[in-house]
Amino acid sequence: MTLEQIFATRAARLKASEIRELLKLLDQPDILSFAGGIPDPSLFPAEAFAQAFAEALTPSRQAQALQYSISEGYLPLRRWLAAHMGTLGVPCGTDNILITSGSQQALDYLGKLFLSPGDTALVGWPTYLGALAAFNAYEPEYDRLRIGSNRSAADYMAQAEVAGGRVKMAYLSADFANPTGETVDRAGREQLLDQAEAMDCAVIEDAAYQALRYDGDPVPPILALEIARKGSVEACRTIYCGSFSKTLSPGLRVGWVVASQAVIRQLVLMKQAADLHSSSINQIAIHSVAERLFDSHVASLRAVYQRRRDAMLDGLARHMPDGVTWTRPEGGMFVWLTLPTGLDGADLLARSLETVKVAFVPGRAFFADGSGANSLRLSFSCASESMIEDGMKRLGALLRDAQAGR
Amino acid sequence: MTLEQIFATRAARLKASEIRELLKLLDQPDILSFAGGIPDPSLFPAEAFAQAFAEALTPSRQAQALQYSISEGYLPLRRWLAAHMGTLGVPCGTDNILITSGSQQALDYLGKLFLSPGDTALVGWPTYLGALAAFNAYEPEYDRLRIGSNRSAADYMAQAEVAGGRVKMAYLSADFANPTGETVDRAGREQLLDQAEAMDCAVIEDAAYQALRYDGDPVPPILALEIARKGSVEACRTIYCGSFSKTLSPGLRVGWVVASQAVIRQLVLMKQAADLHSSSINQIAIHSVAERLFDSHVASLRAVYQRRRDAMLDGLARHMPDGVTWTRPEGGMFVWLTLPTGLDGADLLARSLETVKVAFVPGRAFFADGSGANSLRLSFSCASESMIEDGMKRLGALLRDAQAGR
Repeated sequence: MTLEQIFATRAARLKASEIRELLKLLDQPDILSFAGGIPDPSLFPAEAFAQAFAEALTPSRQAQALQYSISEGYLPLRRWLAAHMGTLGVPCGTDNILITSGSQQALDYLGKLFLSPGDTALVGWPTYLGALAAFNAYEPEYDRLRIGSNRSAADYMAQAEVAGGRVKMAYLSADFANPTGETVDRAGREQLLDQAEAMDCAVIEDAAYQALRYDGDPVPPILALEIARKGSVEACRTIYCGSFSKTLSPGLRVGWVVASQAVIRQLVLMKQAADLHSSSINQIAIHSVAERLFDSHVASLRAVYQRRRDAMLDGLARHMPDGVTWTRPEGGMFVWLTLPTGLDGADLLARSLETVKVAFVPGRAFFADGSGANSLRLSFSCASESMIEDGMKRLGALLRDAQAGR
Repeated sequence: MTLEQIFATRAARLKASEIRELLKLLDQPDILSFAGGIPDPSLFPAEAFAQAFAEALTPSRQAQALQYSISEGYLPLRRWLAAHMGTLGVPCGTDNILITSGSQQALDYLGKLFLSPGDTALVGWPTYLGALAAFNAYEPEYDRLRIGSNRSAADYMAQAEVAGGRVKMAYLSADFANPTGETVDRAGREQLLDQAEAMDCAVIEDAAYQALRYDGDPVPPILALEIARKGSVEACRTIYCGSFSKTLSPGLRVGWVVASQAVIRQLVLMKQAADLHSSSINQIAIHSVAERLFDSHVASLRAVYQRRRDAMLDGLARHMPDGVTWTRPEGGMFVWLTLPTGLDGADLLARSLETVKVAFVPGRAFFADGSGANSLRLSFSCASESMIEDGMKRLGALLRDAQAGR
C-alpha cells in the first residue's frame, strides 16, 4: 500500500467544511455575507484582553503563562467555571471540568471516547456540521434524533444493530442551535433524558450559544435537568460542552467540558496524549477577562445581536415570497430558511454571488445524509441592521426570480 | 453496554503519563528535580512576548488576533517557517506547512492519519513516551526501530503481517532524542530512508530539540536528506514535526508540520474537524517574537544549557559508581543512565524521594514493551550548575547504596 492509497482511504472519512471555504467570501467587499456565523469582531473586549495579557506577562507571572501546564486546565479558570455552572443549575467541582481548545475539541475527544466504526450517533436533521466533521473521523453511522416523537428507544436500538453497532450518543445543541436557531423546550429535554436512559447512551449537550438569549424564558441545561433527577453530576450521562468563542473570543481557543469525574478523567488522558494542554497564557487571560466582565459583556452582546435578529426577522417578513418559511430564534446567531421543494440552496448560492451578491450557507452541509437541498442558513451576527434589510430585500428578489423560473 | 463499560474498554488504550504526574514533584521545595524535561522559565523571552501581545491587541489588529482564523495557520508565520526550513536544507512553500498546537498535536494527527488497529509503528527502544501515548489511541503494534542493523525491511514487514497489519510509520527524534539525548548520524539517517523506501512507510521526524545543539557538527534533517535524493518535498515520505516549545515558549502551544502538500491537505482537514485552528493571537505573537529574536535567543539558550549539560556530565563522571553508564548528548535536555541489571528505576525513585531527595524519570515508561527497568532519564535544563553537582553526588550515593544492597 502506497502512502497515496493510505491518504485516499482516510480522505473518504473526512469532509472538507463548506463553511470554512465560504468564510473566504467575507473578504470580498461587494458581497453582503450572512454566511459566517462568527462573532462580530468589533464587539470583542479587546482592551480587557490587552490588560489581561500584559498582567500575565509581568515578571512575577510570566513563568506560569509561558510554561507547560496541567492537562486539566488552569485551576482558577476551572474554579470560575464551577461557580458559573452553579448559576446555570449545574452544581459541580473543578474535578468535573476540563478546559479544551474550543468546544470543537471536546466534540473530537467525545467522538474518540464513544464512537467505534458502526456505532450510531443520534444527531439533528440538520445539525452542526462541525460535529459531523469531528465524529466522521471515528466512522459512526448517523440516525435522526427525534425528540418527543413516538419513535421509541427500542426502534433506535434495533436500527443501530442493523448497522453492526449500538447507539452510543445523542448529540444536540439545545439552545438556538447552529444551524436552525431553534431551542428544545424543557419537556423535550426531559423526553430526551428518558430516551437516553432507555438506550444507555451519552447525551452530548453543545452549549456554544447558550449565553446568547434575547427573549423568552431560559430553559435549564439538559445537564441541570439530569442533576435534578439524580442528585449529582457524578451520576449523569449528559456531557456539557461550553465555549468562550461566542462570548469573549474564538481566537484564544478556550472551551470547557462539564461531566462526571469518570468521564473527565478519560478526557484528561486523551488531551494529555493529543496536545498536552490548552494554551497556558490564553487560559489565564480568559479567566482574567471573564472574572472582570463576563456578565456585563454578554449583556452588551445580547443587546446588539437582538437588534440584528429583529432586523432579519423583519426583513424576512417584508421581502420573502410565499412558500418560503423560516425559524424565529430566541437567541444565537442563525435563522434557517426552508424553500419550496425543487429549489436548491447550493444552486441559489452560486446564482446569488453572481447577481444579488448575497452569501449564505446552503443547507445540505448540515444533514448527515446529504438531504435538505431546499434549505439555507442565514447568520445575523456580523451585519448591521441596514445591511440586513438590504440583504433580505436582495435575497427575496433572488428567490422570487428562482420561483418564477427566471 | 453501560457508559462505564465503554470507559473501561477505552481506558485500556490510554496510558497516564508518568512524567506529567512527576511534574507535580517540582512544587516540593526540598526536592532536587531532574525529572521535568521542560525549558527553564527564567529564560523565556517574556518582554518580547509582552510587546508582541500588546501589538497584536492594538485597535487595528485586535479583530484578527481575537477572531477565528484558517486551519492551515497564520500565513506570515508559515512564511517565516518556510524561510527558516530553507536554512535547514528543507526548501518548501507555505502550502507545505501546517501550524499545530505543539508538536504533540502533530503526533496525534499523524497517528490518526496512518495507524489503524494492528498496523505497526516502528519506534525507538526507548522512545518519547508522549509519542507512544499519542499513537496508542489508534491501537497499533510497536516494533523496535533498528537503524543500521542487519534487520531488513522484509523482516519488519513479515513481523507486522503476523500482527495483522502493515508497517505504516517509523517515528524518531533524530537529534538529542527524548529520553536518551542521542543523535542519529548522517549515515544512519540515509539507512533509515532506504529502509522506509523498501517498506513504503512514512518517516515521522520529531525535531523538537533540533535547534539546541551545543557541540559537534549539525546533521541535516532527515527531510533535507530525502529532498536531496528526490528533488522536492512533494515526493517525500518524511514528515517533519517542529515546535517552538523548547526555543520560545511551550505555554503558547505552537508547533508546525512540514510535508508534501498531499499530506498537509489531509492534516488540514483533520485539524479543521478536531479543533478548527490553533490560537490566532498566539500564532501572531510567536511570529512577531521569532522574527525579532529567534536566532539570538536560541544562541543564548544554547550557552546556558551547554554549561548545565557539561556540569551534569562532569558530575556523573565524578560521582557514579562502577557499572553505571550514560549517554553524552551533543544537545537537547537529557542524559540517559543505564544501571546494573537488577536495579529498578522506579524502586530507586521511590527510595530517592525519601532519602536523598532527587527526582528523575524511571526508564520503563519510554519502552513500548515496558522493558528498561534498569534505566532512568535525567534532565539538566532547569537546574543550576551547583544543583546539578549536588544532585549527581546524592544520586551517586543512592546508587552506591543500592548496589551494595543497603
